[in-house]
Amino acid sequence: MPQFSASDAKWMALAIQLARKGRFSTTPNPMVGCVIVSADGVLLGKGYHQKAGQGHAEVNALIDAGFTPHRGAASSAQQSSEPPPTDGSTVYVTLEPCSHTGRTPPCANALIEAKVGRVVIASIDTNPLVKNRGVAMLREAGIIVETGLMDTLATDMNVAFNYRMQHHLPWVCVKLACSLDGRTALENGKSKWITSSESRLDVQQERASACAILSGADTIIADDPQLNVREAELQETTKTRFSKRQKQPLRVIIDGKNRLNSRYNLFNDGQEVLVFNTEHNPQLKEANCQQIQLNKKGDFVDLKEVMNNLAALQINRIWTEAGPSLCGALFEQGLVNEFVLYQAPMLLGNKAKGTINIHSLTELDDAIALESLEITQLGNDLKRRFRVKS
Amino acid sequence: MPQFSASDAKWMALAIQLARKGRFSTTPNPMVGCVIVSADGVLLGKGYHQKAGQGHAEVNALIDAGFTPHRGAASSAQQSSEPPPTDGSTVYVTLEPCSHTGRTPPCANALIEAKVGRVVIASIDTNPLVKNRGVAMLREAGIIVETGLMDTLATDMNVAFNYRMQHHLPWVCVKLACSLDGRTALENGKSKWITSSESRLDVQQERASACAILSGADTIIADDPQLNVREAELQETTKTRFSKRQKQPLRVIIDGKNRLNSRYNLFNDGQEVLVFNTEHNPQLKEANCQQIQLNKKGDFVDLKEVMNNLAALQINRIWTEAGPSLCGALFEQGLVNEFVLYQAPMLLGNKAKGTINIHSLTELDDAIALESLEITQLGNDLKRRFRVKS
Repeated sequence: MPQFSASDAKWMALAIQLARKGRFSTTPNPMVGCVIVSADGVLLGKGYHQKAGQGHAEVNALIDAGFTPHRGAASSAQQSSEPPPTDGSTVYVTLEPCSHTGRTPPCANALIEAKVGRVVIASIDTNPLVKNRGVAMLREAGIIVETGLMDTLATDMNVAFNYRMQHHLPWVCVKLACSLDGRTALENGKSKWITSSESRLDVQQERASACAILSGADTIIADDPQLNVREAELQETTKTRFSKRQKQPLRVIIDGKNRLNSRYNLFNDGQEVLVFNTEHNPQLKEANCQQIQLNKKGDFVDLKEVMNNLAALQINRIWTEAGPSLCGALFEQGLVNEFVLYQAPMLLGNKAKGTINIHSLTELDDAIALESLEITQLGNDLKRRFRVKS
Repeated sequence: MPQFSASDAKWMALAIQLARKGRFSTTPNPMVGCVIVSADGVLLGKGYHQKAGQGHAEVNALIDAGFTPHRGAASSAQQSSEPPPTDGSTVYVTLEPCSHTGRTPPCANALIEAKVGRVVIASIDTNPLVKNRGVAMLREAGIIVETGLMDTLATDMNVAFNYRMQHHLPWVCVKLACSLDGRTALENGKSKWITSSESRLDVQQERASACAILSGADTIIADDPQLNVREAELQETTKTRFSKRQKQPLRVIIDGKNRLNSRYNLFNDGQEVLVFNTEHNPQLKEANCQQIQLNKKGDFVDLKEVMNNLAALQINRIWTEAGPSLCGALFEQGLVNEFVLYQAPMLLGNKAKGTINIHSLTELDDAIALESLEITQLGNDLKRRFRVKS
């Protein structure tokens, strides 16, 4: 294992901080941050990946350091008589530099061209097109490459992207908002507002960081929500970052019984909606609404197939705001990775509506087991984030 | 308002710390701590109240300082030629010194006899027999008396005692242990164990600090619990402190339908049980079991009358471990002051058993509203403590 210095740690921490600025806009790409430091420890340049199709973090940092990589292949790069300003520098990058030409040329080539002396990488790319190849390309060019510094932080940051790469499935987060006794609404359906305004603003932040927002026909029919990001309600920093994305998260609606029609709000705001149903629904005519037909399974379509389709559409993180049946089905079919719970400090009693419909359990070992990741106070509510134990 | 110095605050903080040592043993008395400091700032003595009928905090501190108060009235105290070691000292006491002869002579007299120069009091006693009279007695004897230093801390510590004094009702805490979706057991009744072993040990601590443990016939018939303090499971410090109490909390069982009999465990361990029912139950023959008959109300007896009876028995703090009907009835009748929730990181689904049976609410404003006081991590569980908003 390579030994890293305190100075290495400081620069990588900065690279991770930069990477996180892309949280609301890099979809379907991972967040990546990069810092370039001279041999004598002076910061030369920094950058992060903002949006798919735009510059990768390494290239942005090289340009910030005064070196513009040749846009063709490295081998055809014109040799300048002057050494580049990045000559002999150390590059700190949160994710392995890419080795393949996607929408932009390979970053490994740009680093070679910039004559950097050492590259410190937090995480190896889980994308099979890149994994370990970026490292190999750099080493072949004589660059010192060290990996694994702050690997956990950098990997966790891109948990959804990594999960899609490894499992060809999106990372599904289910959100519930309820009382302490697990009730989402009164018996008469009233649920405005169980949670605090702070919690509801936080939901906007969560939606903004998702690639897609998932719900079911039940929820659309009951509440007619838009399920979009209301930019005016975002925190100022998030607003700026989310605006780089230039589009709303994809709304994905499960309609196993073909009950929807174009009159619902979410079909009428010009943003994309994808409906999964069992047969083509002629009532969904809006141009922004696509339909995919799948086999019926229970009350819904085959949810595993939904996820396969969404992974193929490069959806990394799904934020789910759905009713008790769809949430329950997702949990029962093992399709949920993360659970976010907003808990309001009140009790509503056993006649009020519960959170998830699942089959009756016979053993406590069959419970949906969760690992606590994070607790946040939001007004009078508590927000809790869990990972679903597999 | 009197001005207190940093040194005053330091000594009163010590007095409060001492008082808390009595948490598991002073019932039905309040916790009280006392520190005596010489005019030049040297600690002369400290003490706290351990057990009803034994020395009050002030007397214990005086004795620790080398002065043994005369056990008769102050007027008949023998005058010594030597000044007492507490002559001119300052006394820090968390509760107003008593002015009446209860099981022990008045502490105000003892302080006068000890020729202390100044008494700093955190809280005025809420006991109508004492309120402001202790202060008056001391001032009449020429002692400087200042009140209100750390009043909130000292008052909160004795919230249950103060509540009984003011309202002639016990302070009722309801405990629930459930999953994140508010489920206390599977549909088949299994509930061992939803919460962690750390939570279950914590319940022993809570029981040990209660004057009484309240439950219903439903729970006794379903689980046959002992509802006692298992001393072996207490933390070491608590074990020592609880042992000073020399008896278990009173078990109080509501049996609105006369379903109990002497075969249940809690009637057979020699410790006290008090059963509230609507007519005398001849099947409850054990000597340690008392019965009180009250009017029937709903599925139970009149619960407000239960509380009046328990207040008359000098019960300050009630720890409730009961089923959804009794807990619900207590909440609905406005008899609950505090709510302790042990939340296990799991989901059990809507077919599992819920927490409290109350009437269907028509407005969210009718919810049982809670104010969060405390959050503690216990193993994988979260323990949350709330005050019920009135």
